[in-house]
Amino acid sequence: MSPFRASAGFTGNWRHIDLAVEDGVATVTLCRPDKLNALTFEAYADLRDLLAELPHRDDVRVLVLAGQGRGFCSGGDVEEIIGELQGMKTAELLEFTRMTGAVVKALRESPLPVIAAVHGIAAGAGAVLALASDFRLLARSAAFAFLFTKVGLAGADMGSAYLLPRLVGLGRATELLMLGDKLDAERAERIGLATSVVPDAELPGAVRALARRLADGPAGAYSATKVLLTRELDMDLGASIELEAMTQALLMTGEDHREFYRAWSEGRGARWTGR
Amino acid sequence: MSPFRASAGFTGNWRHIDLAVEDGVATVTLCRPDKLNALTFEAYADLRDLLAELPHRDDVRVLVLAGQGRGFCSGGDVEEIIGELQGMKTAELLEFTRMTGAVVKALRESPLPVIAAVHGIAAGAGAVLALASDFRLLARSAAFAFLFTKVGLAGADMGSAYLLPRLVGLGRATELLMLGDKLDAERAERIGLATSVVPDAELPGAVRALARRLADGPAGAYSATKVLLTRELDMDLGASIELEAMTQALLMTGEDHREFYRAWSEGRGARWTGR
Amino acid sequence: MSPFRASAGFTGNWRHIDLAVEDGVATVTLCRPDKLNALTFEAYADLRDLLAELPHRDDVRVLVLAGQGRGFCSGGDVEEIIGELQGMKTAELLEFTRMTGAVVKALRESPLPVIAAVHGIAAGAGAVLALASDFRLLARSAAFAFLFTKVGLAGADMGSAYLLPRLVGLGRATELLMLGDKLDAERAERIGLATSVVPDAELPGAVRALARRLADGPAGAYSATKVLLTRELDMDLGASIELEAMTQALLMTGEDHREFYRAWSEGRGARWTGR
Repeated sequence: MSPFRASAGFTGNWRHIDLAVEDGVATVTLCRPDKLNALTFEAYADLRDLLAELPHRDDVRVLVLAGQGRGFCSGGDVEEIIGELQGMKTAELLEFTRMTGAVVKALRESPLPVIAAVHGIAAGAGAVLALASDFRLLARSAAFAFLFTKVGLAGADMGSAYLLPRLVGLGRATELLMLGDKLDAERAERIGLATSVVPDAELPGAVRALARRLADGPAGAYSATKVLLTRELDMDLGASIELEAMTQALLMTGEDHREFYRAWSEGRGARWTGR
Repeated sequence: MSPFRASAGFTGNWRHIDLAVEDGVATVTLCRPDKLNALTFEAYADLRDLLAELPHRDDVRVLVLAGQGRGFCSGGDVEEIIGELQGMKTAELLEFTRMTGAVVKALRESPLPVIAAVHGIAAGAGAVLALASDFRLLARSAAFAFLFTKVGLAGADMGSAYLLPRLVGLGRATELLMLGDKLDAERAERIGLATSVVPDAELPGAVRALARRLADGPAGAYSATKVLLTRELDMDLGASIELEAMTQALLMTGEDHREFYRAWSEGRGARWTGR
Repeated sequence: MSPFRASAGFTGNWRHIDLAVEDGVATVTLCRPDKLNALTFEAYADLRDLLAELPHRDDVRVLVLAGQGRGFCSGGDVEEIIGELQGMKTAELLEFTRMTGAVVKALRESPLPVIAAVHGIAAGAGAVLALASDFRLLARSAAFAFLFTKVGLAGADMGSAYLLPRLVGLGRATELLMLGDKLDAERAERIGLATSVVPDAELPGAVRALARRLADGPAGAYSATKVLLTRELDMDLGASIELEAMTQALLMTGEDHREFYRAWSEGRGARWTGR
């Protein structure tokens, strides 16, 4: 546990998402398969709070997001979310949209690498959850649909108009967010929205292998890489180079860098501790 | 008409470009086909002022840019612009370059989605007009040439050194702007500079279909998407997420989002009003 | 020589890199072929100082970076750099990481176009040197490896976490910097990390041709294009358009733009002077 944890204990039981932690890998599974894992108010709140807790645990080095059943996530539930929004006051609507945005902010600012394991549909908020992850491993059946305009809302949702142009360029992002049409796995790979695409049967194995690699490797180095990638999108060249110089000097005093040199000198593989 | 219109009436007659408005779609056609639609001082000024007027009209939801004759636009006229520049004083030169930049700024900041319909050559300022549009529908005959260095000027013209790296990446943008060589439609598509490429004979139909879709759809949602895509290129992650939360909460109170839910509940298609 | 040169003379003899200047083209060759041109403290220092001197010479318009022997550059020498780092104090580590970052900052801020001629491996710092260049001409044998995490350090090194996402998008940059795996020339070309890929035997000729073109062309226009591409990554749309307007007005008063118009009027090719 982090030495800087405050009064609250860890949540023992997440009721609206499924969490499994095993050997350094936390797996969050969206678990309403009969609804294509449509998100509810409660699922968003659980995701937000879990993302705040996870970095304080010392038994988690990687986060995997996955969906149960036929697909990854169909987005906000039309009945349980959009239906409810119809009766809400302005302040409540804003509280809701801020909560959904907070999930994406937490994903991007988390020190943990995040792998989205996507099969079947990732639509609306589901597409943004995958977009905000660090790695997107796709099954061939995977498809994205940033379908917000199709429900009369802005294609800019939960940070999608910030993130997508920075992955695929402004032109393609405009097309995808403005029109909301479906994008298959093959095109996602071609334009830089997929880390890799594998046959559906091989997705769990590919996700397990990448998660293990990240959990067993130099976790501090991975974490610093992610954090700087996130921050430097919003920094200028000079400041970025200074931040990298500071970070690298810090990591040079760390155990894993020293271990690399020892292992190299002794002609053996490194035994990473993540410190 | 916008309720916030000041004293001036709408311009009845654009003399240096061709404007047609039909059923929500404004089409601006560059109309000097004998000169490959080379731009003149007057055409720039007309474009700048039209872009200021258009959002105040209530009968326009989409703007299409097209060229008459053999190509889209060959850029600034060598005789009528470059020739004239030779005799100008510093202050006049700056007034000219600011005017051309103002056209691009207006295209990017316009609340209207802009479709560039490109066939044949889009060179120099013509390439930048297409670059500053939201959608670039290309005929197979289309080609871009950011040929500014070939006339002894910076490849950075009218915002091209800002925009192009954000569409195709810094490496490719450096090559295209520094060298100024021609880029065909196929490569434009591959690197993210074309929304789509169709046979020349199909371009007018494809443009019409996309313009209709944008004009008949939830116009407020499309407009918000474009505006946030433009703005968030210059914003950080946290501010972008907050802007999206505010925007989305606003649109949730709008007629089109309510109409989506009603239509969905009644099992029918939505009838968008754009409000 | 620049009229604004201070007291120091130009360095007559670079001891840790090889410099050749011929007809406007400066070629820096990394010259420890037995070590795959692994960088040493001294080589970094030479590169930093050479990049400060070069723009003050009036006989250099283009810089080429190349490697002698089997590859471009294997990165920092494990024995002579990583080994030495083990005994260093915090302040010294930071001095080292700042020096390496200063090389990249100088490459990006140099008014000279930089061509990286890459054959064989470009690993670690070697990959970043190529990344910070304006053009990357690759032999088919070329491969990049941003392998920093493999030595227990951040994938964010010398500005790589700033630059790479701006060339290939955040998704691909995350994969390449976090995992540090090798990337071949073909994939580099596909994702926008290579300007072009040619058979190994043709690389020297391709580099020579591009260097000649840049050295013989309108050097002031090329330089302005590079400088604005670099700066506008960190500027907003409005400021970028204003900077381009100012720059272009300045260049319109320059000799090369006037020469273009004269040459065009007389139906002959332009004779560029770079002024």
